[in-house]
Amino acid sequence: MPSSQPLDRSAAVAPLASTALRPLPLGAARITGGFWSERQQINREATIPAAGDRLEEAGTLRNLRRAAGREPVADGFTGRPFADSDVYKWLEAVAWEQSREPSEAYAAWQSSTSALVAEAQEPDGYLNTHIRLAIPDGRFTDLEKGHELYCAGHLLQAAVAQYRATGDRTLLTVATRFADLLAGYFGADRTEGIDGHPLIEMALVELYRATGTKTYLDLARYFVEARGHGLLVVPGHHGPAYFQDHQPVRDVRILAGHAVRALYLASGATDVAVETDDTELLDALRETWQTMVDSQAYLTGGVGSRWYGEAFGDPFELPPDAAYCETCAAIASVQWSWRMLLATGESKYADQLERTLYNAVISGVSLTGGEFFYVNTLKVRDQAFADDQRSAVAGRQPWYGTACCPPNVMRTLASLDQLVATSNDDGVQLHLYAPAKVVAEVNGAGVGLDVGTRYPWKGTVTITVSETPDQPWKLDLRIPAWAEGYTLTVNGDAEPVGEVGRTQSLERTWQRGDVVVLELPVRARRTVPDDRIDSVRGCVAIERGPLVYCFEHVDQPEGVVLDQAALLPGDLVETEQADLLGGITTLAVPARRRDGTEVSLTAIPYYAWANRAVGPMTVWIDAR
Amino acid sequence: MPSSQPLDRSAAVAPLASTALRPLPLGAARITGGFWSERQQINREATIPAAGDRLEEAGTLRNLRRAAGREPVADGFTGRPFADSDVYKWLEAVAWEQSREPSEAYAAWQSSTSALVAEAQEPDGYLNTHIRLAIPDGRFTDLEKGHELYCAGHLLQAAVAQYRATGDRTLLTVATRFADLLAGYFGADRTEGIDGHPLIEMALVELYRATGTKTYLDLARYFVEARGHGLLVVPGHHGPAYFQDHQPVRDVRILAGHAVRALYLASGATDVAVETDDTELLDALRETWQTMVDSQAYLTGGVGSRWYGEAFGDPFELPPDAAYCETCAAIASVQWSWRMLLATGESKYADQLERTLYNAVISGVSLTGGEFFYVNTLKVRDQAFADDQRSAVAGRQPWYGTACCPPNVMRTLASLDQLVATSNDDGVQLHLYAPAKVVAEVNGAGVGLDVGTRYPWKGTVTITVSETPDQPWKLDLRIPAWAEGYTLTVNGDAEPVGEVGRTQSLERTWQRGDVVVLELPVRARRTVPDDRIDSVRGCVAIERGPLVYCFEHVDQPEGVVLDQAALLPGDLVETEQADLLGGITTLAVPARRRDGTEVSLTAIPYYAWANRAVGPMTVWIDAR
Repeated sequence: MPSSQPLDRSAAVAPLASTALRPLPLGAARITGGFWSERQQINREATIPAAGDRLEEAGTLRNLRRAAGREPVADGFTGRPFADSDVYKWLEAVAWEQSREPSEAYAAWQSSTSALVAEAQEPDGYLNTHIRLAIPDGRFTDLEKGHELYCAGHLLQAAVAQYRATGDRTLLTVATRFADLLAGYFGADRTEGIDGHPLIEMALVELYRATGTKTYLDLARYFVEARGHGLLVVPGHHGPAYFQDHQPVRDVRILAGHAVRALYLASGATDVAVETDDTELLDALRETWQTMVDSQAYLTGGVGSRWYGEAFGDPFELPPDAAYCETCAAIASVQWSWRMLLATGESKYADQLERTLYNAVISGVSLTGGEFFYVNTLKVRDQAFADDQRSAVAGRQPWYGTACCPPNVMRTLASLDQLVATSNDDGVQLHLYAPAKVVAEVNGAGVGLDVGTRYPWKGTVTITVSETPDQPWKLDLRIPAWAEGYTLTVNGDAEPVGEVGRTQSLERTWQRGDVVVLELPVRARRTVPDDRIDSVRGCVAIERGPLVYCFEHVDQPEGVVLDQAALLPGDLVETEQADLLGGITTLAVPARRRDGTEVSLTAIPYYAWANRAVGPMTVWIDAR
Repeated sequence: MPSSQPLDRSAAVAPLASTALRPLPLGAARITGGFWSERQQINREATIPAAGDRLEEAGTLRNLRRAAGREPVADGFTGRPFADSDVYKWLEAVAWEQSREPSEAYAAWQSSTSALVAEAQEPDGYLNTHIRLAIPDGRFTDLEKGHELYCAGHLLQAAVAQYRATGDRTLLTVATRFADLLAGYFGADRTEGIDGHPLIEMALVELYRATGTKTYLDLARYFVEARGHGLLVVPGHHGPAYFQDHQPVRDVRILAGHAVRALYLASGATDVAVETDDTELLDALRETWQTMVDSQAYLTGGVGSRWYGEAFGDPFELPPDAAYCETCAAIASVQWSWRMLLATGESKYADQLERTLYNAVISGVSLTGGEFFYVNTLKVRDQAFADDQRSAVAGRQPWYGTACCPPNVMRTLASLDQLVATSNDDGVQLHLYAPAKVVAEVNGAGVGLDVGTRYPWKGTVTITVSETPDQPWKLDLRIPAWAEGYTLTVNGDAEPVGEVGRTQSLERTWQRGDVVVLELPVRARRTVPDDRIDSVRGCVAIERGPLVYCFEHVDQPEGVVLDQAALLPGDLVETEQADLLGGITTLAVPARRRDGTEVSLTAIPYYAWANRAVGPMTVWIDAR
């Protein structure tokens, strides 16, 4: 049954209805150190503050000032039609950061920018600076490329984040006014239409969850159902899949077309499915997700095999060099996997979410937090030529003409604590292993967990029960699919272990101070690809725990051409290097050159590549 | 020394100066039967006539009528900015056909359409219906995307073809008036500028050769030299390589960016180099050509590895499934190889020309001549999805929104006789083996050759001397690189044979009736790819003579999934099938399914694929 109850503002981004798991209230899980904490700190101290300057330099904030009448409207619009969305994603990141650690600077950014957004809103609730400044009579006249509902979606998401994180209703008021306008305009019995770039679907569900206003859920459902019926007029070469208008959503089984659009839509469809108890739609999404992961996702979790149309490839079309793997697509994949995890409780969704986060998402931001990748290729050749700002060969960039990816990374890192754990009536589920404090309510009683670990560098995860009711409950631990040989103890006593790639439940009447130790076999391993992926046939990749490794030219002995080297059998020698690339474990890998001479190659985590110089790099390497 | 002599109108498309070989006068070589004759007949009887209708349906001819004032100008322009060029390419095909076999219908098309073009020309010589109808004050204001000089180039080429083929000066007058306007407008000491789409360079050299007006050569040279200095403002994502403005032409060693643009430019630069005796430029072009053939061309001769930007890939980036291989790029490659062959006399250029013609060019037109491929992929998977009209998965199309490829095929087939043979002071060179009559002048004396062959199906080529002077001269025969084991006889006496991939010269005092028999080992062979091409590692392809073969799903035993089959060692059994696909030799190839069971697969010539149904197809197949 759909919920029509407004949630407490601290509560879940996810629904109360028709899901196996519930997100914890905001702040109930806190990452307290380790790998992700380091990334979050850089995000907070370097990335988000600098992005404010970039938004100013790019004219993105100036668009809002002009639309607000603070600067002359006649001076026009700067940037791409969807520029407003960059501000909203940045505001969303600012909001989540305040839930993690309030600060005057963050509060000032939030209040001044939110006030500006509110001022830019038109009297009837409409808000889009591109339309206001460049095409004043163009509202909803170019749904294919105008990105008006896409920008609206990011506004709604920022508003919900701000409200939930800080209680500030400034943006929420703007968002509900705009959403009310949309609900009065679009619909099967009003004006038929969908946006060329999905996003509004999940944003409306989130607004529904925050406000309890069912109209927003109804509109989200309309937008999901209206797709695939030719409402969009497809210009130029791109077919309707580019706009995700090629098939009704519930008929889709293989994703095609623009990857970010496809995955935002899938996320929104999942939200609608769980909120409306639509098991047919959810079953379609399950099947589609599985096909994506089995045949359309790279080892890094990255998706989008094609530059042309920024699109999914056909099943098993996964060329590493030509990979598009937009950072935003990886983030969208994380969002979808998270929603599928909540809906089903199946650990495979968390496995894929983790793979994508550790590899395809954070490869999109430099270690110092100031530069970004738009495209996350898995291979750069010798003699590679950059003919596009987005090409990895052009190097990481401080900002992009289309600046969707940078603030998307910011909001993802700022909200990462929310993905650590969930709860349900049976107990608490741990999904991401990181030093953390988790509190949850299980059947009305408080549960507390302290997690200690050096994951992903080390496989030991120590979970101490800090609070528990007297009744039994289940502690669910995700056992990653790669964790063959893991062990588990409770207060030193070995637990029976089972299959990997599933959840292990520990049910008992817990005591404060109980200690669970999960030992995951974090050690370098060779991964063999599916035979049907042409471009890596005969190759292997190296992984270690959740990290995909790569070979970067700068680390190799002189004279080694990566494209002409082949791995040999033999030990993968691990070395912790605290001073290299922010602290990583490197791997020494036996190999031979094309001339047959043996040589030791060095592998580093994929996410850390291109932080020294851009040069040849490969994830997959010949192993014949 | 550059020539400033106007040529006889029957004479070469190529220069008198600084080339090793000279094209024969128009009509001096005639294909009289066989493989190419069949294609030419279909081109003449089906393709070119139907294209007249397509040009009408698409509004392309109507644009000219409006620009000519025959229909209201105010009704505007239809199609893409470069639509005029489709008419000009078609007129060029019509002209060449008339040199092959005059007909009333062809003469009528030529005269009526040429008259229309002449009427559409503006008083000062300018001619472009897109500008005239859509942007009357927009002349030369959008050199990046306007295609004005690109259209002009095709006009010039059509005009030269018409003049040379029929003596009709209608288009030549239009062309010289326009070229004079261009020469008065563009230049280092006039308005600096180059077109976003090269072509004008070779067209101006051709016009210079037809008219002797050196201004046109000077302007061509200016356009070549002005590239790579940032004259074009690059919009959107594409870098300057898309417009071939990333490097001065003589600095280029590896092609990058838009393949058709790159190859038209390379062709024009070759023309300029030989006409101005610019050995530095020619040396750069030699090196660039070699790199292209060694590392950027597919087995079919197709070029352009990337859909995005219709661009060359980096060296060894040659994914078969994602191959763009635009038909126009293959044609442009033929044009460039032909120019390099003339410049140097080296048979490797003719080898590549032949490979490209037999595979990547004619795959672009259906066997019945009515439908086309824009993109010539080397692999279609199971579950492939077409999100673009150009995708092979969408099937062959009767026309395209961007209709550059179809009339480009037409003019190529209609002018193919011109590529059969050349001459120089030493003798006559045969490049393409086809039933043909060749007459040439060697040091002022007439030479005649009759060629008989069933090539490419059979390897026997019989050359009878039908006319010869009393002085000795050389008959040069191209020995393809794949022809290991060939034999050669003169009047039944064996000649010593040498290396393959070069020219074999037979010098003597020939007698009428002398018979030379070249036996080329046309038999199926396995081809192993360069190890550095990721996506075909561990695979082989099958070739037979100049033909690349492929496996098309429709020919395989039930239950075979091509992507999961592997070839086995064993005989490749040849069968002539007169009734299949216009008459082909099929190959039975031993293979095994993924489950290990053995099966016989059927291979057909690549050019003939997708003439029954579009389904899975592959050129390269696993051979491990």
